[in-house]
Amino acid sequence: MTKNIKILKVGGSVITYKNKDSELNIHVVKQIAKDIFLWLRKNKSNQLIFTAGAGSFGHPLAYKYQLNAESLQKDPFGFVLTTTNMQNMANRVARIFHYFKVPLFPIMPSSIFMTNKGRIISAYIDTINEALNRGLTPFLWGDTVIDRSHTFRILSGDQINPYIVENLKVKELYFGTNVDGIYDSDPLKNHDATQIKKINDDNYKSILTSISESGNLDVTKGMRGKVEEIHRIKVRPLKCIIFNALIKGNTYKALSGQKVGTKIKFE
Amino acid sequence: MTKNIKILKVGGSVITYKNKDSELNIHVVKQIAKDIFLWLRKNKSNQLIFTAGAGSFGHPLAYKYQLNAESLQKDPFGFVLTTTNMQNMANRVARIFHYFKVPLFPIMPSSIFMTNKGRIISAYIDTINEALNRGLTPFLWGDTVIDRSHTFRILSGDQINPYIVENLKVKELYFGTNVDGIYDSDPLKNHDATQIKKINDDNYKSILTSISESGNLDVTKGMRGKVEEIHRIKVRPLKCIIFNALIKGNTYKALSGQKVGTKIKFE
Repeated sequence: MTKNIKILKVGGSVITYKNKDSELNIHVVKQIAKDIFLWLRKNKSNQLIFTAGAGSFGHPLAYKYQLNAESLQKDPFGFVLTTTNMQNMANRVARIFHYFKVPLFPIMPSSIFMTNKGRIISAYIDTINEALNRGLTPFLWGDTVIDRSHTFRILSGDQINPYIVENLKVKELYFGTNVDGIYDSDPLKNHDATQIKKINDDNYKSILTSISESGNLDVTKGMRGKVEEIHRIKVRPLKCIIFNALIKGNTYKALSGQKVGTKIKFE
Repeated sequence: MTKNIKILKVGGSVITYKNKDSELNIHVVKQIAKDIFLWLRKNKSNQLIFTAGAGSFGHPLAYKYQLNAESLQKDPFGFVLTTTNMQNMANRVARIFHYFKVPLFPIMPSSIFMTNKGRIISAYIDTINEALNRGLTPFLWGDTVIDRSHTFRILSGDQINPYIVENLKVKELYFGTNVDGIYDSDPLKNHDATQIKKINDDNYKSILTSISESGNLDVTKGMRGKVEEIHRIKVRPLKCIIFNALIKGNTYKALSGQKVGTKIKFE
C-alpha cells in the first residue's frame, strides 16, 4: 500500500500560552497527543510529520535579541538562548507525546537548516524520510537558525512546512489553529466574521478579495497570508484543513477526514 | 590570524552519575563551564567544539531497548525515548553553560547523522563550521541514530569526534575523563597502575604492548582502545591531551597548554 504522508502543524498559540513566557498549554498538548495516538492506531498506512510554532518559548526572546532583523550585528547569546529554549519546549512536548504512546522524534531545526536572508538555502531532511519508514513521527518546530547574510534568523514552522511538502511530496497539510478555520476577517476581534468553508482553484481569487475588503489590513493579513502561503506551495494536488486545535477531538476529526474547519483543495 | 579549532570531549562518567539514572553531575558541569569561559575569554582566536558522552542518560535506556544490537527488530519507542532523554541532558548542560556565559549551541546528533551497521554514512556538519565562525561553541553528544541496516544504533561521542576531526581539519583533541590520563592498567582498580606521560610515533607500539601485558584484557581494553582510536584518526599532526576533568581547574589547564594528564602527539 502506498504510504500517505500528512503534516500536522499546530500554532504556537495552541500549544503555549502566548501571554505567559515559556509556558506550555499542557492540557491542549495532551489532547492533541491523544488524538494523534487514536488516529495512528486506526490508520497504519498513514505517516505523520508534526510541526509546531514557537509561541511564548520563541517570540519573546527572538524579539528581545532582534533575531529577525536584516542585520549582521546580532548577539550570539540571543541565538543560543532562543534555540535552547525552543529545544526545551520540544523536549517537553515529546515527553508528553511519548506518555500517550506517540513515537514523536524531535528533529532540531537549527541543526538541519541554514538560511540566507531568511530563506532556506541548505537542509538535511533525509532523517525525516527514514524516520517515517521506521514508524516514527518526526517533530520539527519554529526555531532560530544560522543565516548566511544576517548571522541568525528566525525559521518559523510555516516556512519549514512548504520545504518539507515540496521535498517529500506531501499532499496533505493540517493546520491546528486557535480559530475554527479561515474567516473573511479576524473572528477573535470581529463578531460578524464569516467562516469560509471551502477554498479551491475556482474561488481562490474572489476569496482573497473578500478577505481583503472585510476589515483593516493588519487584522486580515494573517488569514489572507495563510491562504496565499498555501497557494504558493509547489505541489498539486494539495489538500489542507485549517481547524481549531483547542477543541477536544478536532485533531482526530481533521486527520480522519471528518468535517471540521476550512477545507482547501488546489489541483 | 588562523583560527585553531579544538574539540573537548568529556566522558559520560564525568558529567553524569554513572550509577544514578539520568542524573547530571551539576557541580562538575559548572566547573567545566567556568573553565571554558575563562579560556575562551583569554584566547579570542581559539574555537571550541564541545562533545559529551551519554552517561546515565543514555546507557540504561540503550541497554534496555538493545539499541546497539545488530538486528532489525528494534522498538521505535526505545529509540525516541533514548534520543529525547539525551536531548534533555543536552538542554540542561547548555543552560548551565549559558549561565556561565559560554555560548553553547546544541546540535542534535540524531538530527544530523545516519549510520550503516554503526558507521557514519551520512551527515550534515555545515552548521558546526558556520557556528564556529559566529563565535558559538557547538555541542554534540552521544546519541542513538537511524541506521540503514540495523534500524537504529548508538552513535557515541567517541565516534562523532573522529568524524568531525577529519572533516573540519581539527588538530587538537582534549579528553576529559574520570582518571588522570592513560595508564598501563586501570588506575581505579589497580593501585600499581603507572601513568604514561607521553605517547608519540616512536613509543606508540611499545606502549600498546605494555598496556596489554599489565592486566586482564577487560580492564586494559579501555585504555588501549582509547590510544588506538586516536591513532586511527586520519589527521596529522594530531595532538591529544587526556586528563582528569573531575578536578577543578584541569579543563582550563589542559586547554591552555599547561602540563596535565597524558599528552599524545602523532606527526
